[in-house]
Amino acid sequence: MSFKRVSEAVIRRIPRYYRHLVMLESQGVERISSERLAKQMNLNASQVRQDFNCFGGFGQQGYGYNVSTLISEIKKIMAIDRKHSIIIVGAGNIGHALTNFPGFNESGFEVKALFDINKELIGSSVNGRPVLDIKDMDEYIRQNSIDIGVIAARRTAAQEIADRMCAAGIRGIWNFVPVDLTTSVPIENVHLSESLSTLSYKIEHGMLD
Amino acid sequence: MSFKRVSEAVIRRIPRYYRHLVMLESQGVERISSERLAKQMNLNASQVRQDFNCFGGFGQQGYGYNVSTLISEIKKIMAIDRKHSIIIVGAGNIGHALTNFPGFNESGFEVKALFDINKELIGSSVNGRPVLDIKDMDEYIRQNSIDIGVIAARRTAAQEIADRMCAAGIRGIWNFVPVDLTTSVPIENVHLSESLSTLSYKIEHGMLD
Repeated sequence: MSFKRVSEAVIRRIPRYYRHLVMLESQGVERISSERLAKQMNLNASQVRQDFNCFGGFGQQGYGYNVSTLISEIKKIMAIDRKHSIIIVGAGNIGHALTNFPGFNESGFEVKALFDINKELIGSSVNGRPVLDIKDMDEYIRQNSIDIGVIAARRTAAQEIADRMCAAGIRGIWNFVPVDLTTSVPIENVHLSESLSTLSYKIEHGMLD
Repeated sequence: MSFKRVSEAVIRRIPRYYRHLVMLESQGVERISSERLAKQMNLNASQVRQDFNCFGGFGQQGYGYNVSTLISEIKKIMAIDRKHSIIIVGAGNIGHALTNFPGFNESGFEVKALFDINKELIGSSVNGRPVLDIKDMDEYIRQNSIDIGVIAARRTAAQEIADRMCAAGIRGIWNFVPVDLTTSVPIENVHLSESLSTLSYKIEHGMLD
């Protein structure tokens, strides 16, 4: 599937639709109108229909959407209808938290190993996953066809790690280091300090969503 | 200061300007043109000038911006020129990682205490911060005039915690739980599963930034 014209804003709403639909399904809801889904998500109904039209529609207007069909379609669109293997570089606090994060396995994301430069950590394990020597990362990515590389290492090492990941054939990078990385593969950044500064801005300027 | 018409996109770029400017200052750069700053940040120069104009400009065109002045102006705009006190609800992996996050203190954010419902964690400490009983949270917020409440607790408890934080006078909420919370104060969400799903989408559809 290819949806080249889908905007970043729509792409960021898709996982949110998914989350709400999974919740509705768990409550026994089988069919939902764009109006009701919109209300639950604090959007408007035409926005929902417009978003879904980006991906071919999913349902008949006036009749509502079948919740479980919608869930499986959105899983395909987000490519979370399959497994993704993950390695994490940096076995510090963030690396630990991500390895233990319950939400990932539910969505088919599986942490295979962590890598670190610290000799005291190498050879240990985190939640059953081995902490390996960073020098062996490239070979590990190749041999295990790792999909996603998480960078939670020191700031100064981040670009080099990204370069090595790309060269070894990683398919995407999830970056937790406050640096703008240059990569040849898709990247998604989680800049915690910047998120907190944004909250500080919103507080100062009284911005409610 | 009030900048009501500043778009969400600009607000999210401001912390990134700050990060780049701090780096430039540490490299001894005293003055920078919008062209050079734009190039470094992979933006275009008119975008930079337009963003800065939202906040009154900061400099004379053709002459460039004074880096340290710009840094102190942006700190004021983001309100990170002062201290913010933080409590974290949920002393699990995310709570630990955030308590130990080095980037926060640099920006004036200080974690004062963690709260949990788990009797085995209450009374312990994380990086020198006490883990307290969740039942005492409201009183603690009031007595210590806490600015920011971080929610890193169970999904089912998140809305109730947010309600209690708001009633106790918290000024903003930083939410790590995959739920859309209703609050009477500004909120900033970090939805890790959704970020990872977005990466999965970008990989599937070959989206480079």
